[in-house]
Amino acid sequence: MHKVLRFDVLEYKERVRRVKERMDANGIELLFLVDPANMNYLTGYDGWSFYVHQGVLLTLEDDQPHWFGRQQDSNGARITTWLDEEHIHGYPDFYVQSRYTHTMVYVANLIKEFKYENKNIGVEMDNYWYSAKSMNVLRQELPCAVFKDATNLVNWVRTIKSPAEINYMRQAARICEHVMQTAIDAIDIGIWEKDVASKVVAAQIAGVDGYGGDSPAIFPIMPSDIRTSTAHLTFDPDRKYQKGDVVLLELSGCRFRYHAPLSRTLYLGEPPEGLRKIAQVVINGLQTTLDFIKPGITAEEVELRWRKCLEGTGVEKPSRVGYAFGLNYVPDWGEHTVSLRPGDKTILRPGMTIHFMPGIWLDEFGFECSEPFLVTEKGCEKLINFPEELFIKK
Amino acid sequence: MHKVLRFDVLEYKERVRRVKERMDANGIELLFLVDPANMNYLTGYDGWSFYVHQGVLLTLEDDQPHWFGRQQDSNGARITTWLDEEHIHGYPDFYVQSRYTHTMVYVANLIKEFKYENKNIGVEMDNYWYSAKSMNVLRQELPCAVFKDATNLVNWVRTIKSPAEINYMRQAARICEHVMQTAIDAIDIGIWEKDVASKVVAAQIAGVDGYGGDSPAIFPIMPSDIRTSTAHLTFDPDRKYQKGDVVLLELSGCRFRYHAPLSRTLYLGEPPEGLRKIAQVVINGLQTTLDFIKPGITAEEVELRWRKCLEGTGVEKPSRVGYAFGLNYVPDWGEHTVSLRPGDKTILRPGMTIHFMPGIWLDEFGFECSEPFLVTEKGCEKLINFPEELFIKK
Repeated sequence: MHKVLRFDVLEYKERVRRVKERMDANGIELLFLVDPANMNYLTGYDGWSFYVHQGVLLTLEDDQPHWFGRQQDSNGARITTWLDEEHIHGYPDFYVQSRYTHTMVYVANLIKEFKYENKNIGVEMDNYWYSAKSMNVLRQELPCAVFKDATNLVNWVRTIKSPAEINYMRQAARICEHVMQTAIDAIDIGIWEKDVASKVVAAQIAGVDGYGGDSPAIFPIMPSDIRTSTAHLTFDPDRKYQKGDVVLLELSGCRFRYHAPLSRTLYLGEPPEGLRKIAQVVINGLQTTLDFIKPGITAEEVELRWRKCLEGTGVEKPSRVGYAFGLNYVPDWGEHTVSLRPGDKTILRPGMTIHFMPGIWLDEFGFECSEPFLVTEKGCEKLINFPEELFIKK
Repeated sequence: MHKVLRFDVLEYKERVRRVKERMDANGIELLFLVDPANMNYLTGYDGWSFYVHQGVLLTLEDDQPHWFGRQQDSNGARITTWLDEEHIHGYPDFYVQSRYTHTMVYVANLIKEFKYENKNIGVEMDNYWYSAKSMNVLRQELPCAVFKDATNLVNWVRTIKSPAEINYMRQAARICEHVMQTAIDAIDIGIWEKDVASKVVAAQIAGVDGYGGDSPAIFPIMPSDIRTSTAHLTFDPDRKYQKGDVVLLELSGCRFRYHAPLSRTLYLGEPPEGLRKIAQVVINGLQTTLDFIKPGITAEEVELRWRKCLEGTGVEKPSRVGYAFGLNYVPDWGEHTVSLRPGDKTILRPGMTIHFMPGIWLDEFGFECSEPFLVTEKGCEKLINFPEELFIKK
């Protein structure tokens, strides 16, 4: 079957090598991954099949990971992964959402076939795709295995992007610029919110400059008015924009599942003084903090620099101000590794990609202006070129 | 804060009453829900915040469920739920993806506040949003509680739709017809696959007849050529449609998170005889089976009737041929309750909505033609009006 790979096989093999280094350091002999981004990272697998149990098994001794999934999805693995036929395992359909058995019985049998049932097995304990039931069934079926928590083990390997990954993220960044401009051009008093959202999602997929897009890991977050007082509401399909609306836009471009997210804020009418002031404080703080970022400083030092910019301004920001991002699937383009917040001692290194996102959500309205950046050898580089301002339409 | 509710408060209260009946029948005194669709069903909560831990707690004694989530999302609960201020709980940001503590510590403290730490607690053991780690932490923090598996407890209550829910699903059906027609009109030899996908997602959000749409729980599944040999690949953003392509379209309309999914197949050129034959068999089987469906028969009897239509035709279908659907979020519009397959003894009842989806995926190509239907008092009603045929463009 003809394969369509997004990276050179050598790059996948290097990823496997780096993951094995971490497995060994953590005393893990077999790693069981369920996170779709981690599965993709090691094998290339790319399909919307994660709503049933599936995964990747990697042992310290094998050069290739094993993919397993529903039988009807196994051709998807043949097409999108670099794995050979012996490393692709389709399970029968009766396991799917069964009330009598569980897919982890099948997985346990695979692990027994590999003769790893008495070994140290790493599992992603706090992952969306690894349910409490999955853990229970595996423990029951493999009573002699030692289970270790490997949550985010591969995510941490993913934090340093390769040149080929950065290339896709730059393409996603071009798409994102186009998407954000589309939104800002389309929003106006009297326009249906859904009609703007429709143009936004169309631009996300159509892409630019010959780069087609993918559906991002988060739907377009574009609330207006009172819905901007909170972080994760979106447009109201039955509402038109009105004079006096604040509109928040948190939108991403996506290319082969690599993201480039951006936030901006638009006001319809003459903005209240309070909003103008917050915008000025946030934009100044953003620029000052970006100038400060370079390899060798820690994530918490970035947040501290930002927080100093707020001193005496009356603006408060009680939540984290950024997170690592890159390859991902729903429900989050965040990588669940580096967070820009007090206590995060991660040292920034070249190749890391972080969304600096100091969103402010007050009870009446919110303001967002963010920048995704790449840590370079000497400092940081904004991945996206888009004006940093409170956009105003009168 | 001004509330925007999609259903009457009385309807939410009736749902709570029906869920409590099931809790009582299962010996559950406090139900802890994490499934975003179940949270929405009982409270109205609608936001893209499920990528962090959040949930709903319902006790047998209280008339209202409790919502908890990240502090910055609590205004989202104030706006979209019918709950009063005492039933909305925002947790501090340091719990988010922390390496030192876990949101379930916060949840355990809430349960202690409610004085339910020694009671029978139902949890959704095999749900995407209930990780193995969540279970571990809760067990540790609440050593005297008895945990019971409440996976799909609320999903089963959701299987029977109210008139107001069916109304939204009919609106979603109108959107879906528009979306499918948009796709079929746009696909042609030499057209970029991404440009068709872009029109599809735009139509999903723009809606029709004044009904704005939402982002469906599954991205547009629209593979071509060899990618149709499997169930869950989509368009290739860097490919143009070619003569001889089979294109599968599994697309949904979505209205206030209620879905209406549909599958159709299009061929570019003169279809091979094998594909024509499969199409004829599937479409005949579809119609015969729909005529057979009425309240009182079981899910497995529907599948058996379908399977009989295949006898002697050479067409095989080894996976389930349908599933209940309705209200949902990513990654699945399926309800995880009724499956049309051998062994499912569920008796069909008026108000159930099922996607009859006998997809065929062979090694060279696939064929899909499906119908979502509503079980009525006397039979079943197709929710969507769209021609059942192999669409051909020469």
